[in-house]
Amino acid sequence: MPLGERPGDEKSESRYCGVETEFSDDMPYVLSYNLQGGFDFVVAPLMDPTYRPSTMKSGNDASHVLPFAGSDLVLSPSQWSFHVVGKISSWIDLDSEDEILRKDSEITLKQEIAWASHLSLHACMLPSPKGSSCANYARCVNQILQSLNSMQLWLRIPLEKSDDDTDSRDNNSMTDSWELWNSFRHLCEHHSQLSIALDVLCSLPSPNSLGRWFGEPVRTAIVHSNSFLTNARGYPCLSKRHQKLMAGFFNHSIQIVISGKSVHSIHPRSLDSGASSADNQNDSGTQQHPLRPYLDYVAYLYQRMDPLPEQERFEFGYRDYLQSPLQPLMDNLEAQTYETFEKDTVKYSQYQRAVSKALLDRVPDEKASSITTVLMVVGAGRGPLVRASLQAAEETGRKLRVYAVEKNPNAVVTLHSLVKLEGWEKMVTIVACDMRCWDAPEKADILVSELLGSFGDNELSPECLDGAQRFLKPDGISIPSSYTSFIQPITASKIYNDVKTHKDLLHFETAYVVKLHRIARLAPSQPVFTFIHPDFSTTKSNDRYKKLQFDMPSDTGSAMVHGFAGYFDAVLYKDVHLGIEPSTATPNMFSWFPIFFPFRTPVCIQPGIPLEVHLWRCCGSTKVYKILFPVLSSAGVLRILCSGFSSLTRIDVCLFFG
Amino acid sequence: MPLGERPGDEKSESRYCGVETEFSDDMPYVLSYNLQGGFDFVVAPLMDPTYRPSTMKSGNDASHVLPFAGSDLVLSPSQWSFHVVGKISSWIDLDSEDEILRKDSEITLKQEIAWASHLSLHACMLPSPKGSSCANYARCVNQILQSLNSMQLWLRIPLEKSDDDTDSRDNNSMTDSWELWNSFRHLCEHHSQLSIALDVLCSLPSPNSLGRWFGEPVRTAIVHSNSFLTNARGYPCLSKRHQKLMAGFFNHSIQIVISGKSVHSIHPRSLDSGASSADNQNDSGTQQHPLRPYLDYVAYLYQRMDPLPEQERFEFGYRDYLQSPLQPLMDNLEAQTYETFEKDTVKYSQYQRAVSKALLDRVPDEKASSITTVLMVVGAGRGPLVRASLQAAEETGRKLRVYAVEKNPNAVVTLHSLVKLEGWEKMVTIVACDMRCWDAPEKADILVSELLGSFGDNELSPECLDGAQRFLKPDGISIPSSYTSFIQPITASKIYNDVKTHKDLLHFETAYVVKLHRIARLAPSQPVFTFIHPDFSTTKSNDRYKKLQFDMPSDTGSAMVHGFAGYFDAVLYKDVHLGIEPSTATPNMFSWFPIFFPFRTPVCIQPGIPLEVHLWRCCGSTKVYKILFPVLSSAGVLRILCSGFSSLTRIDVCLFFG
Repeated sequence: MPLGERPGDEKSESRYCGVETEFSDDMPYVLSYNLQGGFDFVVAPLMDPTYRPSTMKSGNDASHVLPFAGSDLVLSPSQWSFHVVGKISSWIDLDSEDEILRKDSEITLKQEIAWASHLSLHACMLPSPKGSSCANYARCVNQILQSLNSMQLWLRIPLEKSDDDTDSRDNNSMTDSWELWNSFRHLCEHHSQLSIALDVLCSLPSPNSLGRWFGEPVRTAIVHSNSFLTNARGYPCLSKRHQKLMAGFFNHSIQIVISGKSVHSIHPRSLDSGASSADNQNDSGTQQHPLRPYLDYVAYLYQRMDPLPEQERFEFGYRDYLQSPLQPLMDNLEAQTYETFEKDTVKYSQYQRAVSKALLDRVPDEKASSITTVLMVVGAGRGPLVRASLQAAEETGRKLRVYAVEKNPNAVVTLHSLVKLEGWEKMVTIVACDMRCWDAPEKADILVSELLGSFGDNELSPECLDGAQRFLKPDGISIPSSYTSFIQPITASKIYNDVKTHKDLLHFETAYVVKLHRIARLAPSQPVFTFIHPDFSTTKSNDRYKKLQFDMPSDTGSAMVHGFAGYFDAVLYKDVHLGIEPSTATPNMFSWFPIFFPFRTPVCIQPGIPLEVHLWRCCGSTKVYKILFPVLSSAGVLRILCSGFSSLTRIDVCLFFG
Repeated sequence: MPLGERPGDEKSESRYCGVETEFSDDMPYVLSYNLQGGFDFVVAPLMDPTYRPSTMKSGNDASHVLPFAGSDLVLSPSQWSFHVVGKISSWIDLDSEDEILRKDSEITLKQEIAWASHLSLHACMLPSPKGSSCANYARCVNQILQSLNSMQLWLRIPLEKSDDDTDSRDNNSMTDSWELWNSFRHLCEHHSQLSIALDVLCSLPSPNSLGRWFGEPVRTAIVHSNSFLTNARGYPCLSKRHQKLMAGFFNHSIQIVISGKSVHSIHPRSLDSGASSADNQNDSGTQQHPLRPYLDYVAYLYQRMDPLPEQERFEFGYRDYLQSPLQPLMDNLEAQTYETFEKDTVKYSQYQRAVSKALLDRVPDEKASSITTVLMVVGAGRGPLVRASLQAAEETGRKLRVYAVEKNPNAVVTLHSLVKLEGWEKMVTIVACDMRCWDAPEKADILVSELLGSFGDNELSPECLDGAQRFLKPDGISIPSSYTSFIQPITASKIYNDVKTHKDLLHFETAYVVKLHRIARLAPSQPVFTFIHPDFSTTKSNDRYKKLQFDMPSDTGSAMVHGFAGYFDAVLYKDVHLGIEPSTATPNMFSWFPIFFPFRTPVCIQPGIPLEVHLWRCCGSTKVYKILFPVLSSAGVLRILCSGFSSLTRIDVCLFFG
């Protein structure tokens, strides 16, 4: 029974809550008992925990049956797949000094995974590595992953406190369990079927340290009954920090599993006054599941979350979905693309505000009826900026003559019919031409364009506007008047693995437009390149170079950087801006998702060591190269070349450590 | 409004019927008029047919608007996508001697396709090539296909009579329109977005000639009003041969488009006695669509088809879906795979019949209570053959001792629990072992196995049974006692293109298990390799060589061979057989789909010239090679190596022409 309904988030996996169980031969009972108890799935051992391969009598091989929990027939295939996660025997220790234990562990691990595959289980949970070394365990899991069906392996990792009081480099103790995960997944070559089951304990690491996990492939969080506090009425509850963490799990589609024994003895008579608002299946007189109060509390936390905001619902299906950036200069957009972008009313009302302010600045009230302002929309598409400009003229009472310049002949058809429909024939001239080669009949007071990509200049707005400013008056205004790109290092294992599935270099040399969701932002974003329009100076260049240094918060611990998230912010006119940089983003605007620059090889950063990045933008006469990302680690140089960023664009980044 | 409902075929595209229309500026009217008239989509010209690029005044370029039918805004994006197929101007002739016409044609074609892409139309229909040469037309279409969005291009091809009375090689006249299609698609490199709109005329080519088209990418069939006959009541109807062809279209998801003017003048008063059983939308007093009687007749043909048989419904989702063959010797099967195959009751009842007959032959009635027959199931899986054998023993009153040999330890768990559940402990011994290395405690009277793949021996049944016959008595029986593979050349553009999408050689070197649907079988299948069990001879070998010659029916015309379909037939015991060879296939058995061996390069075969194929099967001590397909065309040798066919198998075929 799902935890509840959250409007806009109906498909989230975090609605389902599991329970960790003991070994039992009677799987049908285990399943029905826990499903009736209100849980959606069980994390159950598949093999008798007393089994050790080395103690089996080896003589009569042929009649040998492994002590699995029941046969595959005791549950239906869909019950196995949807309601059972296999829990691999927790005694296994593949890095033990004891050779017999080590060998038994490897045999058992393989037998249990084979059995779970046979059952087509959705996932198996692997026990946490026993010591700080996990080399043989990881090697064996990597070997299993190479020929595994679609099953996921969840490595259990305690969410331990990363305490920086002791200098970890001196005493070499690994207090940060993220390091354990990192070395394990490194040995498994970032395999996409290896993910994490986080063990949530009583004490929690710092918020920055916790934040790292949201960019890692965490599938489930195991909350132990003894991590719960007791409220005034004797019921289990969680600390404020734990509550916030749980909300983070719910928001990132991470499922909760409740584990342990009931440590809150609740008198049956007080049950009906409990915190639960979920159905209580206890009415038939059967014994309540001992962990039900914990489940009810988790359901209460789930249900009390705010509904997903409108914009998040609209963008839900795009979460972590990689798209290639549009290349409107090279390709003509399709009608449906125009249709989508034209619906972004927030964007066009910002443009209208900017044009209004510019008109008021250029034409004083007393000359409103005598002066006609010449406004050119370069890249008019199907006309939304023409409409916004005319509305600004009407709003301010200024007279306007508009030229709508558009190179796509298909959009020009719509422009013509729009002008006819709206009766704009006297005010609007349509110019079916590339702005870079148009011979304008007069000069413009205002040049309006929307050529910005997710990273600002990545759709070659600077180059297009350089071509267009020929027909702008020397004191003319460009809307936008400037724009700046931003980057930020992120942990993003999900989208990194999606890039990796293509198995070629080309896809790592591409930048992606993506609604970032399962990521961790490791440091505040920083500005990269700024372009100002118009720029009539003779020494003007669109080449750029920038050096940035990112300092991670000291309590984060180590973290994995899978690439950079990129954003932009644009000043349309004076105080009217629009953009997607997280700290200043224009609300409810959906025309741009962030851009993602993947690293070919993710880079692990250590606490206290800043990340230095060098970025270039290099232009040729017919091609624009962005040289952004050659990665330097101490002595060696790793170059990440990103082609396909824009029509004729190549990107490199340069990282320095130390 | 769809033509009707056909149980089991609800998702077929052939339920939707279109109509070809004239050019009109008023697309909303064109659409609503024809949708109200009962059609589901229109095939409508997008550009004014009087337009010629060369006659446009070239001076005022910037205000130039192309004379498209309305702007993109006159219909919603979904109306454009779902209800309009663009009809490219029929006057275009890219292979004309007239240079102006040729250039105008190329410009117009590109402008119209760009407009259709802008509208995100589902498809555009290209006019039929004007003469026998189509080189420039095809070159230009190929160029367009290279950067097209997901839109389909339907090349209009008349379904002309292929008359073999005249020797086509002498007078060089191309009477067979298939040749026109073949040269066009050849120049477009078999592009998957190029498909066919067949023009159905009054007279039809021979059935074999028609049959070829069902393996080609035919999306729609345009039926002209003047192809209809007139029935006794003055209504349009089609000839028997046309009716059969229409059923073929419906069965292959080909959509009908009705074209032309009404040539049947039906008195309004006789309307209510018409052949139609579809809704008549005429009740509101509006004028009936003039082509409605033709549509009603097509709907009548659609509705009168038999419901899809049970097995076809079950297999519907697998039509033309490529799967890799199972490799049970290398990989252990999963529980769900066992589950699916165990449901094939027809197969196991055939096995039960075979075991019953063998038991009766081996043990006369008078010794039924004294002799215990030893039966070994090699590859027992989860026990279906054990059950069938025990039922045969019960049915015949014979005493049986069963050994169930199975190498998959996960299946052995189920076998043990099955034996316990059914109380078979005294009759059945479970042997958890690979049959090739088991040391049997006694010899068997009957050896039962189900190791057959779609191509008979392709899951290495011969090698496995060779290992197992060690423990069969010299006069013992193997069930199956023999099996034979079959092949047949087919046209199969759909699955060929699916193989091609992988863009690597590996996928062409693979054989696929596939429910063949959109294919044309070009000649009856012929037997390839036969294996008989047991075979105690000392000279026995599993190497094979076979030369086959396929003669196409003389009235087929030329045809494209995209590869071979493969089948098997097995004799279980005496007259009890099972198999999937089309002419003798066991009804209602679903354990095997045919196998498909793709050619890397499809081969065009000419009428009257036989297709010669050489096939080898070569075995090594630890690997089995099938050498099947080196393709020889006159002098050159093209080898098609198929690895991955079975665990350790390579396949080649050799074709000779001439």
